[in-house]
Amino acid sequence: MKLFFVTGNRNKFDEVKKVTDRYGIELEWSDIDVVEQKLKTEKEVAIAKALSALKILHKPVLVEDTGIYFDAFKNFPGPNAKVVFEGVGSEGVLKLLEGKPRGAKFVTSFAFATPNLHPIAFVGECRGKIAEKISPIISFAYDAIFIPEGETRTFSEMTKEEKEQYSHRAKALDEFIRWYTARKLFPE
Amino acid sequence: MKLFFVTGNRNKFDEVKKVTDRYGIELEWSDIDVVEQKLKTEKEVAIAKALSALKILHKPVLVEDTGIYFDAFKNFPGPNAKVVFEGVGSEGVLKLLEGKPRGAKFVTSFAFATPNLHPIAFVGECRGKIAEKISPIISFAYDAIFIPEGETRTFSEMTKEEKEQYSHRAKALDEFIRWYTARKLFPE
Repeated sequence: MKLFFVTGNRNKFDEVKKVTDRYGIELEWSDIDVVEQKLKTEKEVAIAKALSALKILHKPVLVEDTGIYFDAFKNFPGPNAKVVFEGVGSEGVLKLLEGKPRGAKFVTSFAFATPNLHPIAFVGECRGKIAEKISPIISFAYDAIFIPEGETRTFSEMTKEEKEQYSHRAKALDEFIRWYTARKLFPE
Repeated sequence: MKLFFVTGNRNKFDEVKKVTDRYGIELEWSDIDVVEQKLKTEKEVAIAKALSALKILHKPVLVEDTGIYFDAFKNFPGPNAKVVFEGVGSEGVLKLLEGKPRGAKFVTSFAFATPNLHPIAFVGECRGKIAEKISPIISFAYDAIFIPEGETRTFSEMTKEEKEQYSHRAKALDEFIRWYTARKLFPE
């Protein structure tokens, strides 16, 4: 069964496909525009995205949503991580956290759905903290200020393989793959 | 023709109804849950909300979306004003703007749609600036830190009538009412 991973981000697709390939899962890229709703959690956003993608493709779909949470605030920015980052950048985040607790966690949810199966979500988290300054390495969004628990380096300062050990996205994907490969033992 | 103003906020309904009543527009309250999408502008959000409300009610609908923009940042927080306010509060906003330009504007868009009419949007803006400190008056969201152009007081420090003179929401509503009352001269 072919799965369509729906994302506007080609790099994200490549990253996920590298993993799914190891398990013989046939993953195809789709960059169709799906409805992204303002909802409270990554899981809810991913499920709504999966339903939207399904309506367009009528094929098995996999989607993803990632957010970040700062202990200093209540449910912020959560699934609105991108909007906040694009608005105020790492500098703005450091400013907001001045003199406040620096704990944080990344959360990723994948959602999988088929025309015969309601969306099912898989969540992965990575706890850590926000660095005192921005890593001097050009990197993706919050990666240059996020230090995972048990590390002294930000995600930006790690190799892809090192990051994968901690990564919320890798954990959520792993949950999905376990479920999916077990399920394949049964007929559709 | 009866219009359904769809909002979860009863106070907003009352505020709008007070104005539409003056023009003999029959406004009813509906608090159905509509899909709120992550989009770039208040106008796009309002149009998507109107379509979502129409799908449920199959009646003429009016919806509203309000955002705020800080000159110091690019398109931020825009239609995500509520998420940012709930996350970091007025204190967080003042922190983010420390040492930065304080210009800001409020934007409201109403969208109107009927089963026979594609949504049409009406936009109102109010320019002003963000105060150096929070008004000591309990008030709605950004009102305690927003000073409209030509004033020295924040929205919180004004009476409802004073605020209405400047208000982005009042302007957008006025645009809608002009269009709607002119249109009523013609049969449906």
